[in-house]
Amino acid sequence: MSDLYSESDYYVTAPQGYRAGSIACGIKSNATIHDLALLVSDVPCIAAGTFTTSSTRAAPVLLCQERLHGHRAQAIIINSGNANCATGEQGRKNAARMTAAAAALLGIDKKLVLCSSTGIIGRQLPIEKIEQGIKQLTLTSEGGVAFSNAILTTDSRPKRMTLEFLIDGKTVRLGGVAKGSGMICPQMATMLCYLTTDAAIDADWLQQELQLAVDDSFNMISVDGDMSTNDSCILLANGLAGNQPLHEAHPDAAIFRQALRKMTIYLAREIARDGEGATKLMTVHIQGASSREDARKAARAITLSPIWQCALTGEDPNWGRLVAALGASGCALRQESFDVFLGSIQVAKGGVATEYEFEQAQAAMLGPEIIITIDLHIGSHQATAWGCNLTAGYIEENTVYHR
Amino acid sequence: MSDLYSESDYYVTAPQGYRAGSIACGIKSNATIHDLALLVSDVPCIAAGTFTTSSTRAAPVLLCQERLHGHRAQAIIINSGNANCATGEQGRKNAARMTAAAAALLGIDKKLVLCSSTGIIGRQLPIEKIEQGIKQLTLTSEGGVAFSNAILTTDSRPKRMTLEFLIDGKTVRLGGVAKGSGMICPQMATMLCYLTTDAAIDADWLQQELQLAVDDSFNMISVDGDMSTNDSCILLANGLAGNQPLHEAHPDAAIFRQALRKMTIYLAREIARDGEGATKLMTVHIQGASSREDARKAARAITLSPIWQCALTGEDPNWGRLVAALGASGCALRQESFDVFLGSIQVAKGGVATEYEFEQAQAAMLGPEIIITIDLHIGSHQATAWGCNLTAGYIEENTVYHR
Repeated sequence: MSDLYSESDYYVTAPQGYRAGSIACGIKSNATIHDLALLVSDVPCIAAGTFTTSSTRAAPVLLCQERLHGHRAQAIIINSGNANCATGEQGRKNAARMTAAAAALLGIDKKLVLCSSTGIIGRQLPIEKIEQGIKQLTLTSEGGVAFSNAILTTDSRPKRMTLEFLIDGKTVRLGGVAKGSGMICPQMATMLCYLTTDAAIDADWLQQELQLAVDDSFNMISVDGDMSTNDSCILLANGLAGNQPLHEAHPDAAIFRQALRKMTIYLAREIARDGEGATKLMTVHIQGASSREDARKAARAITLSPIWQCALTGEDPNWGRLVAALGASGCALRQESFDVFLGSIQVAKGGVATEYEFEQAQAAMLGPEIIITIDLHIGSHQATAWGCNLTAGYIEENTVYHR
Repeated sequence: MSDLYSESDYYVTAPQGYRAGSIACGIKSNATIHDLALLVSDVPCIAAGTFTTSSTRAAPVLLCQERLHGHRAQAIIINSGNANCATGEQGRKNAARMTAAAAALLGIDKKLVLCSSTGIIGRQLPIEKIEQGIKQLTLTSEGGVAFSNAILTTDSRPKRMTLEFLIDGKTVRLGGVAKGSGMICPQMATMLCYLTTDAAIDADWLQQELQLAVDDSFNMISVDGDMSTNDSCILLANGLAGNQPLHEAHPDAAIFRQALRKMTIYLAREIARDGEGATKLMTVHIQGASSREDARKAARAITLSPIWQCALTGEDPNWGRLVAALGASGCALRQESFDVFLGSIQVAKGGVATEYEFEQAQAAMLGPEIIITIDLHIGSHQATAWGCNLTAGYIEENTVYHR
């Protein structure tokens, strides 16, 4: 499998038959920043999606969930700067109008167009500006780069990757792009993530594999514990690579599954690393848990602890805060049996401090990536979660007026 | 009922027959700060307690839970600066040694002595210093003031109150003191809270009433979502007021219940108000919920949202963040029916923005206390939770080295 990260790989437009484009249509106050983007496949795709489990889901999420019942889509229109959430009936009409305008530009059935919005909650979309903007979009097969920038909000950089591999001897590509930053604690998917492939894939299998991949990637990251109203992860598969459709029993199913996991974990980690104000990525491995659910709960609890996130910022090996987060997580444990490692330094054994050197433990807290491993020694299940440190930068970004 | 807040009311030593004292025994690095405190009743008390539900409960919590099986206690010895948590068998022995030393000083059975610890997790107590310190303690009936200071860690001020009321025509007092600050998200009690009364009270009724009061007070506050390993709330009732023992059918039971709720809600609010780095107290009322549990869940979810806590700091009426926290809470709701108020300004009606004036909504975010009311309009249950804003001060306090 080749991992491709350079701009000349085009990400979501890397697989055959995809085009994208973006424009500044005036939703964001800075008129030079692109805030509208469109992704389209030359032919209708098999499509799968996972979405936020919030009870205050945004209008575009409701639209996608409805249209994906048929497992088919051909295009996605996305705006940043406004979440189209808590906007009621008018919000739902505006979501439909966005897709109708994109369908008109593309000359396709509007039922094949999905949409996403990200930004401030509680305001109606400037729908006329969006409709005008859509008319002016130019779509190209290099557009994946512009697309990855136009969907950002407070992200400091785009998150994107291209993978290339063989299915049935045919070259297949998987392109991906995501945005994250704040209000990150997905329970079904993440803020926004779009994946494209030219592989031919069975619809039910695609949805199943996407859900499994999302469970171990986007659903295991947290920046601030705030689940968003707009979290969406959508995968389009247009089949232009010419392989036999992938399904559970296909001999190359594992290759696609591995690529999809690699892609989603990479993008998820990039979202955690680029959390608002963050300067450190934390990876938490829980092993020896009595169930997979317990391992996941414990790993996430640690990434969610603000007091531990502050210790990361201070590069302070105050592992007692890990013990507190672990204890509060609801995960089954025995107080006399768990081990804690900061990087490769074991700071607790059997639930109490080892004779570790403070300087060594502190050294494990330096650098841009911190790895925490906790072995509960009561079972054989494990999980990995990713998060980031908490800094004054987070406070600053979220304290400014939204007006 | 009289509410007494001045230092001459002595708080936990205000009821008849209680004495307290404190000393600097050298646990904290600043040798002038008192870090050891003792509270004692002249006679054995009926006692009740609620404790953290953490799976990594500290040694003193385990000791209290065991000794309170008999519903009797006479004294509590407390240290700050070290949590005696993740300290294994030695930690449990040290907790017992603390109580034995206090029992020796007082000339009472050590089984009647409870203990608490608060501070850093993962280090053994300096037990010899504590034993030396205990020998030097002086206990007086004015000692409730010193006691309320000695139990603090990063708190900026003590939290304490005295209430006076009549039971069976006898004057009864209820004194209370608490500490809080960081790692505050109790699920059974709060960091540390001690309540004393000279009322005579039936043991089972006392435990039941304490649990109910704690559920609506300490269990409804959050500073940072981090449940502690040491949360404890203990109530001693020595009966010296001479009333007929209080129980469910006592004609004055409601008077004591009301005093206990007033005390616990006051102390809980003070903990939230004095959260690490906090400058604003937030009160969240949820009404019209379909169950009490849902109302509690929704109210707490809002106090727990870092992104909303930052909006409070910025005095930014960005109520969309409330909608996101509400949607993520798991509380049942209808998107088209909920109303949102900032102070007295209605910013959303039927799930969408009202035509509110931005300046008015912003004015509701000013000042030291912010009240948020959300009416879900789907049932008749309600709940109130308290929290605080999130500032760079929180990050700062929790970023410094613990060494």
